[in-house]
Parts: sequence; structure tokens; C-alpha cells
Amino acid sequence: MSDLTKNNNSSSNEGQNNPIMVEVTRGNMVESIHRASYAVVDTDGKVVLSGGDYEKVTYGRSAIKCMQALPLIESGAADAFNLTDAEISIACASHDGQPEHVETVKKWLEKIGCTEEDLECGSHLPYHIPSMVDLLKSGGSESTLHNNCSGKHTGFLTVCKQLGYDLKGYVKYEHPLQQNILGAMETMCGMDLGDAPRGVDGCGIPVIGVPLANIALAMARFADPSDQPETRQEACQRINKAIAAEPFMIAGSDRFCTKIVEATKGRALIKTGAEGVYTGIIPELGLGIALKADDGVTRSAETVIGMILKHLKIIDDATAQEMKDVLEPPLFNRAGIQVGQVRAAQNVRF
Amino acid sequence: MSDLTKNNNSSSNEGQNNPIMVEVTRGNMVESIHRASYAVVDTDGKVVLSGGDYEKVTYGRSAIKCMQALPLIESGAADAFNLTDAEISIACASHDGQPEHVETVKKWLEKIGCTEEDLECGSHLPYHIPSMVDLLKSGGSESTLHNNCSGKHTGFLTVCKQLGYDLKGYVKYEHPLQQNILGAMETMCGMDLGDAPRGVDGCGIPVIGVPLANIALAMARFADPSDQPETRQEACQRINKAIAAEPFMIAGSDRFCTKIVEATKGRALIKTGAEGVYTGIIPELGLGIALKADDGVTRSAETVIGMILKHLKIIDDATAQEMKDVLEPPLFNRAGIQVGQVRAAQNVRF
Repeated sequence: MSDLTKNNNSSSNEGQNNPIMVEVTRGNMVESIHRASYAVVDTDGKVVLSGGDYEKVTYGRSAIKCMQALPLIESGAADAFNLTDAEISIACASHDGQPEHVETVKKWLEKIGCTEEDLECGSHLPYHIPSMVDLLKSGGSESTLHNNCSGKHTGFLTVCKQLGYDLKGYVKYEHPLQQNILGAMETMCGMDLGDAPRGVDGCGIPVIGVPLANIALAMARFADPSDQPETRQEACQRINKAIAAEPFMIAGSDRFCTKIVEATKGRALIKTGAEGVYTGIIPELGLGIALKADDGVTRSAETVIGMILKHLKIIDDATAQEMKDVLEPPLFNRAGIQVGQVRAAQNVRF
Repeated sequence: MSDLTKNNNSSSNEGQNNPIMVEVTRGNMVESIHRASYAVVDTDGKVVLSGGDYEKVTYGRSAIKCMQALPLIESGAADAFNLTDAEISIACASHDGQPEHVETVKKWLEKIGCTEEDLECGSHLPYHIPSMVDLLKSGGSESTLHNNCSGKHTGFLTVCKQLGYDLKGYVKYEHPLQQNILGAMETMCGMDLGDAPRGVDGCGIPVIGVPLANIALAMARFADPSDQPETRQEACQRINKAIAAEPFMIAGSDRFCTKIVEATKGRALIKTGAEGVYTGIIPELGLGIALKADDGVTRSAETVIGMILKHLKIIDDATAQEMKDVLEPPLFNRAGIQVGQVRAAQNVRF
């Protein structure tokens, strides 16, 4: 048990000794293995459950979009523009570019007097394969709207509109919007991040290196913000409520995040990030979760999140049985025959 | 140094202690790490270079397609159907479904009196994104021809035609074609594989678990088949020559395998497989290479293969410099700005 509310600049051991938590079978053999580290933390900063190096300095990537959405609420922008739960949820999303996602972002941009040209996230084809096929077959092309981060970026533009910030360059570290977000991250993670390692995310915004347990602390404060200033409390609660009410918007119909938030009816608000990062907010327990797969592989991070939620009884035995193909997914070949499985490692301990 | 030509049924330690060989940076921090094991073996079965658990029992996946193509030559099918280098190369390929790949397979199928309906590999969209976009925009759909294994399966059908085997069910372990291939693998790997772990590959054919160093031994025998029976010698040499002459057919214009075979002018014949497997044939040194990334991630396997080829001086310093963006690729965000790199781990030793 450690107190994470003090500054913590301890260096990482690069996950040298993180345990094997997930194995991938094929036929009668384990074919691949995955290591990870994680922390489950309460609002006092106590690590109540952990595996591996939970102080590993980690870029939260898209798993901390809820923190990046705090200025959207706290600036008054969400009220000023009458944002819906769907819009707030997609501001925290890595969406799959299904038509409903694209439509939601498009209408929101119209509402704030912006267009897809104002989004600085870059473009890519929809991750949702049937939506991508439909788009191309109908003569369409990829756009910034399909970018999995387009909701987050529309949230950024909304804050800029509200606070009179320059719309150009809102992705840059020095832009006042990104400095606002950094401030929110510092108070939520309980540490000064001015000298933290940093880089640039796939969508162009800053990524900030934070010890995994401090990311979990931030998620615990989302889960139970009662010790936070009133504005922060309201913002956290509004974001939690929006994700719970609109789980489709956070990811998509085929996605792990959406399925878990739906199945738990919002008792677990989980979010994926690139390079095998995951976070979880558990309001009823006042707990936050952060994990990183050493190798950056999402199938591994999802399986570990499922293990943690089962351990915490947020996913009960009956639900685990119903969702077994989500929690420990079978692998199929191109002909649709099961040939293997992603599963918890046989020797993993909680 | 160990003699691999005897049976080797030692169990694997599941890569518990494999070294970190590759790291992925972002900004001023290492974000993800990859562990791997590998063996470089000569035709006597001596392990001349290795890292990690080189006896790990491994499914060779698509990295051993050259072995699966031996019956295509040895049955007389290649001569009977006047197979070109392009056809023999694509029989050993995991191709990207570019139009030239699809056309090559289609014409070959016509030549043997078969159609894409006879292929039992299943279908998927081309891996090459511009080709996929063009296919869909022009109203096309995925077919078995686009499957990255369609060349291998066409080779299988060609052997079945030549030897009078039933065309239906040629993917099954019990089918005489697969038993032929198993026999070729046993002699090349220097071990009995009747009781080896097995499973089913993505394209439906059997995968057989073989210690990594014995896969490397098979590749060494490809590199220098002079101790093999005459028919096998000729088959290995014809396959080597075909891949060296047609490197585009083995993978595709954007792919690591193709770029390395091209850049080394066939001095290194390397081949990727799913779940982070790689093999290499180095004719001038009479050496074979086999490696497996613990976590199954291809970016890691490619980087390690590059490190081995540099160590063996098959890639010299000048070529390494020219190819640095292939060997240790930069990572870009959606806006095309470099944000990180995949590179050899700083503490990795040869």
C-alpha cells in the first residue's frame, strides 16, 4: 500500500519483471504470451490490488480521454452548447467510425459553427469493417470525421469556442487548451507533470508519462469525486453518467469497451488506449484501474481488465459465463472454425 | 552448441526468460517492449547464434511455406505444369492481395483446370490498403484469390492434380497431401513430428509445433542442401531461386520480406508468419534462422531479423544506413509527423 498523492517521479524498470498474465492458445499448445502491469487504487491513493510494476511511467493514450474532457464541462461549454450524453460520451471515445458516430460528430460540429476541416486529428478509414466497406462501395472516402478521436477533437474545439481560444493549433502542448488539460491531469493524478516524459499521440495531441498507479488514482477520483472541488465533482459525475448512458458512443457495436459498459450497466466504465493501455472507473467501489500491456497488444489488455472486473465482482459468475466469448475470446480461422483462444494465463494470481 | 539432428521433444518454458530485444519509443520515453527468442543454425545442427529459449516449441505458421512447397517440386508438378518463378514464389508467400498477386494466382488456377472455388483458404480483403480501396470502389468484393495464402493453396491443388489426390479436403491433417508435407518437414527439421503439438492455421491447414532451432535447421538445409537426396537438393534450389527472382510475389511492395530479399539480392530469403514468427535462409553461409516474438507482434520480429542480418554482415553498414527506416522504422501520427520509433533494445547483446 502506498500513498500516491505525493509527487512520484520514480523511474520505471521498463517492465522487466512483469508477470505473464495472458496466453494465446492454438490447438493443444500455448502459442503466444503477454505480460502486463496494473493497479487498482482507491481515492486515498492506496493500491488495493496490483500486478507487476504499477509505478511504470505510462502514456495514458486514449484511455484517459475522460480527463481530457474535464475542461469541456468545467469551462461551461457543455451547458452553453447543450451537449447531450451522446456528445459527451463520444468526446471520451475511441469510436469505430460507424455511421451513428460520424453523424453525431458532424451535427455537433455544426452546432458550434465548425466543420470537419477544423479537426486537426487527421483522417483514417473507419475501424468498423462493414462501415468501411459501405463507405468505399458508396463512393465515399476517409475523412477527419471517421478518425476514432474525432469526438474528442470536437470537444476540444467546443472548449476553444467557449473560452475564446484560437482554433488553430489546439493540439499543441503550448496551446492554452492543452495546458488546461495538463492542469486537470495534475490535480486528478496527484502529481506535478511539468517535467514528465512527453510525446505526441497518433491524433497529434500531447501524451504525458504518468506512473500507472497515479493514472488509477485519477480514475478513482472519477469513481468517487466527493473530495474534489464542486465543479470537478459535477464534471466527473456528468462524464460518468454520459458514458454509462451511451456506451455505443465510447467505442462501437463490436468493441470490448462498449460491451462491458453495457453488460455492467455502467458499474464499470472502461476505456482502451493505444499500445495496450486500459483504464476503469468503478463508481460503487470508489476504485480506479489502470493497466498497460508491456507489448502494447490490446487483446492482452482486454483480457486482464476482464480478470480484474471478475475479481472485484463487478462481473459476477453468471455474467462472466454469458460473456465468456468476450472476456476470453475464441480465435477463429478464415473458415469460421475455432482454432484457439485468448485466455488468462494458467498461473496468474490475484 | 547442440546437435539438433536427434529427436528433440523437450518441453518449452513458455519463453519465461526471453530477453527484451525490441523497444518502441514515443517522445522521450520507451512506451512498449518486446521479447523474443531465436536460433541461427548450420547444416550440422549447430546453433551458431541464439537468443532466449531457442528450443521453444513453435508453430512455424506462414514462415515455413517453403517447406510446404517441397512436394510441389518433388512430385513433378512444377515441371508438369511449367511453373514460373513467380508461381513458385507465390506458393511460398503471404501476399498482400495486390492486383499482380491476384492475377498470378488466377492464371495459375486456370492452368491446372481449377477455379477460386477450389481454394479452401477462405477469403479476406487485400492487406494492401490502396488495393483494397480500389477493389471496393470499383464494386469488387473479397474472394479466396485475395487471401494471403491463395498462392500456397494453389500449389497444394497443383500437387493434388499431379498425384491424383482428392481436391476436396486437401487442408485436413489426414489428407495425403498434408501427410506428404509432414514427411518433408520431418526430414528437414530432423525429428519425428507424429506426436508433436498441433493445431489449425488461419487458412485451415495443420500447424505443427517444432522447436525453434529445428525450424532453423530446416532453413539451413534449404540454404545448403548438398547433404540432402538429389530430388530434395533440386527442390530447395529451385524454391530459393524463385523467391530470389520474384521477391514481390513473396509478400508485396510495402512489405519487409520483399524489401529485404530485394535489397540483399536474394542473399537473405526471409519469410514472416503470423504470431511473430520469422525464418531466414542464408545460402552463402549455409545458415538457417528461426525466431518467435513471445507476444506474436510482427514489428518486433522484423526488427530482430534485421539485427541478425546485420550481425551476419548479410546487410552491410551502407545498406543498413540506406534501409534504416525499414530496419528500425519510425512511427508517424495521422498527420505524418514522426512521433516515435521501433528499434533494437538498448541493452540487447549478440
